[in-house]
Amino acid sequence: MEKTFRLNDILALERQTRTNLINSIGGFKSVGLVGTQNKLGQTNLSIFSSIVHIGAHPPLIGLIFRPGNPMRDTLANILETGFYTINHIHEGILSQAHQTSAHYPVNQSEFEAVGLTPSYTESIPVPFVAESKIQIGVQFKEILEITSNNTQLVIGEIVFIKVPENCLGTDGFVHLDKVNTLTCSGLDAYHSTNTIDRFSYAKPNKDLTSLLSNG
Amino acid sequence: MEKTFRLNDILALERQTRTNLINSIGGFKSVGLVGTQNKLGQTNLSIFSSIVHIGAHPPLIGLIFRPGNPMRDTLANILETGFYTINHIHEGILSQAHQTSAHYPVNQSEFEAVGLTPSYTESIPVPFVAESKIQIGVQFKEILEITSNNTQLVIGEIVFIKVPENCLGTDGFVHLDKVNTLTCSGLDAYHSTNTIDRFSYAKPNKDLTSLLSNG
Repeated sequence: MEKTFRLNDILALERQTRTNLINSIGGFKSVGLVGTQNKLGQTNLSIFSSIVHIGAHPPLIGLIFRPGNPMRDTLANILETGFYTINHIHEGILSQAHQTSAHYPVNQSEFEAVGLTPSYTESIPVPFVAESKIQIGVQFKEILEITSNNTQLVIGEIVFIKVPENCLGTDGFVHLDKVNTLTCSGLDAYHSTNTIDRFSYAKPNKDLTSLLSNG
Repeated sequence: MEKTFRLNDILALERQTRTNLINSIGGFKSVGLVGTQNKLGQTNLSIFSSIVHIGAHPPLIGLIFRPGNPMRDTLANILETGFYTINHIHEGILSQAHQTSAHYPVNQSEFEAVGLTPSYTESIPVPFVAESKIQIGVQFKEILEITSNNTQLVIGEIVFIKVPENCLGTDGFVHLDKVNTLTCSGLDAYHSTNTIDRFSYAKPNKDLTSLLSNG
């Protein structure tokens, strides 16, 4: 049996029910820990599930910001320093990662509050998560206003990547399952993955082949 | 051992290697089949891995469009009819779904070319994928230009949802793994998922609890 919702049905749902439905209906999402700090050195760490690939030439990545804490602190810090980090989440740091979504006071670092370790690399003035196996350093490029609901899309250029060698294919592909990177759904669910296949570039009237043996 | 890339290293990579690296480094992505048609009734179906949750109040979802076919056909159709559909992918339709990324001529429907079935519902003038277990109907709202790389973010309002009852929790959460919705990474890799946990709303100094028993 199936259930259908028209717009009127969606709008009539209790607020939290609608939040859960709409947050989960779009599919599994990229999730990561966004590390920032302000000019005084106060660090901030916040979990984001609205990370979106924007393009590879130049290497760009996007984040959606909704109004309100703790996103506001993160955005203010990004605009202040021009940099942020995106750090992958594996099962070993999952509860700490989710806990960063709590509304801590601005003068308390989520790193300390949840028990994760800030780490730094040359010429990027914001913290990475030392426990994350994949770390991305991003330089702010552009902010777009989404007028439909007063959210913002922040675009940044990927200026640093740290990735374990054993998950990096010769063709540049990152085997995320080899480092147990998680995906999320809705506001609060986290999932591991199993690779089904990698396919060749699709062309009309040509059968797909598997790329998995190519590493 | 870890490998690090600075911006100069990224920019020095062979083009396809850079494409693979940057497309996969951000994490697992939402992937779906976007169904459209033009005013003459010519249907189009294209796989998208840049679906992003924008907000639940109102219910909004975003798609990133890069220049070029087949995305250009999809975008032209959206602007022509004001509607599009997003259809989840499970393993049973995976190779057909990936095959929609081939560059078919504009007068050939990908539905027919790959062997998927268009289906329609009242007052939404664009095709769903009958084989998809979760179907979303979207009405165009807004388009934003990302000047950093000449891509576009298309925002739409979710006006229709069809979801199997057995994956819909009483709190509105959709258990995507119960219908075997897939996630993707990079340009060409597809993955199934295993749920690790759902956590309670995080608050400072309060332990997280699991929501999984709540359905």
